[in-house]
Amino acid sequence: MSNEKGPDHSRRKERSRQAILAATRELVAEEPYEKVTVEAIAARAGVGKQTIYRRWPSKSAVIFAALLALSENADRQNDEQPVTLPDTGDLETDLKLVMRATAEEFADPAFDRLIRALNTEIVNDAALAAEYQEKLARPLDEAKKARLRSAQEAGQLNPDADLDLVLEVLYAPLFQRWLHRSAPLTAAYADSLVESTLRAFAP
Amino acid sequence: MSNEKGPDHSRRKERSRQAILAATRELVAEEPYEKVTVEAIAARAGVGKQTIYRRWPSKSAVIFAALLALSENADRQNDEQPVTLPDTGDLETDLKLVMRATAEEFADPAFDRLIRALNTEIVNDAALAAEYQEKLARPLDEAKKARLRSAQEAGQLNPDADLDLVLEVLYAPLFQRWLHRSAPLTAAYADSLVESTLRAFAP
Repeated sequence: MSNEKGPDHSRRKERSRQAILAATRELVAEEPYEKVTVEAIAARAGVGKQTIYRRWPSKSAVIFAALLALSENADRQNDEQPVTLPDTGDLETDLKLVMRATAEEFADPAFDRLIRALNTEIVNDAALAAEYQEKLARPLDEAKKARLRSAQEAGQLNPDADLDLVLEVLYAPLFQRWLHRSAPLTAAYADSLVESTLRAFAP
Repeated sequence: MSNEKGPDHSRRKERSRQAILAATRELVAEEPYEKVTVEAIAARAGVGKQTIYRRWPSKSAVIFAALLALSENADRQNDEQPVTLPDTGDLETDLKLVMRATAEEFADPAFDRLIRALNTEIVNDAALAAEYQEKLARPLDEAKKARLRSAQEAGQLNPDADLDLVLEVLYAPLFQRWLHRSAPLTAAYADSLVESTLRAFAP
């Protein structure tokens, strides 16, 4: 009997999955977006095109998986702790830390191109947009809302504020400015978003 | 001598331009985005592909022109008046009117698909993003800022507020919610954005 489905097979499959995701990230970082095709990813990863299509239905799906794997790896480095936001007891300090880090992250060219590629796909693909919401956006939003709830309990935020709205008012301007490249993402800008959001939802 | 460059020639050129832009809008409204190609636009408009490429360098450029023409036609219907925002003297009332209309416009399927197509292009094309800012976004932003300035003078808005930031805090959440289809764009949502923005930038 062959042990094709045994531990060696699983290891090979996992190695090929990692090679495909790494190739995707590299290509997105290096090439104009229209050149990132399933063929190019397969060639870079040293696998056949069918190996990719057996696992993912489309280029969108591979790009999404590449981004998801980045965020899973980051989690693993943190000893599988779920994402949490800093909590020094002062909401303004903590949010400024987070928003400055977010502005820096978006300004990193490798991350910029990967997120831009993902956005291109989800804008035109409602199913992928839903998967993005469920697997990436919502877990992060829940972590942020936990921090906002503790601020509500500490009397630093309106106890009746709609926390989804608070997050939108805080993050969406930065996202739009980045997406449309309408102005630079500076630390001062990150701070001003925190300040206007806290004024809008003051206790 | 032929009068190829005379008035008849100009009229023919303008008719072909209008046919191409109309074909672009129809295709974007009807077809999945990857099927909207320069070939398909040429076929629908009844012109050769080269007629399109003589005028526009890329599919992105044609889509942008189609959207720009829509907004120029709207201007012309208003007797070439520049865009202005309603000014009843009450900023909250006026902004709610505008934001509800914006939410409705984004919910219109034909407009939705055209703006989504344009966004797909400008996300990956910095030059087109700059053209979008200059020709479409900035003139609208200037009209909105004129209304905000009159509210500052009337003591309804913080006189030191950065008006670009005010516009971002007001519009970006709606834009992001629409782009990511993360939640519905209701009139109540439009109102809540106006209210949180006015709290953030109260005098």
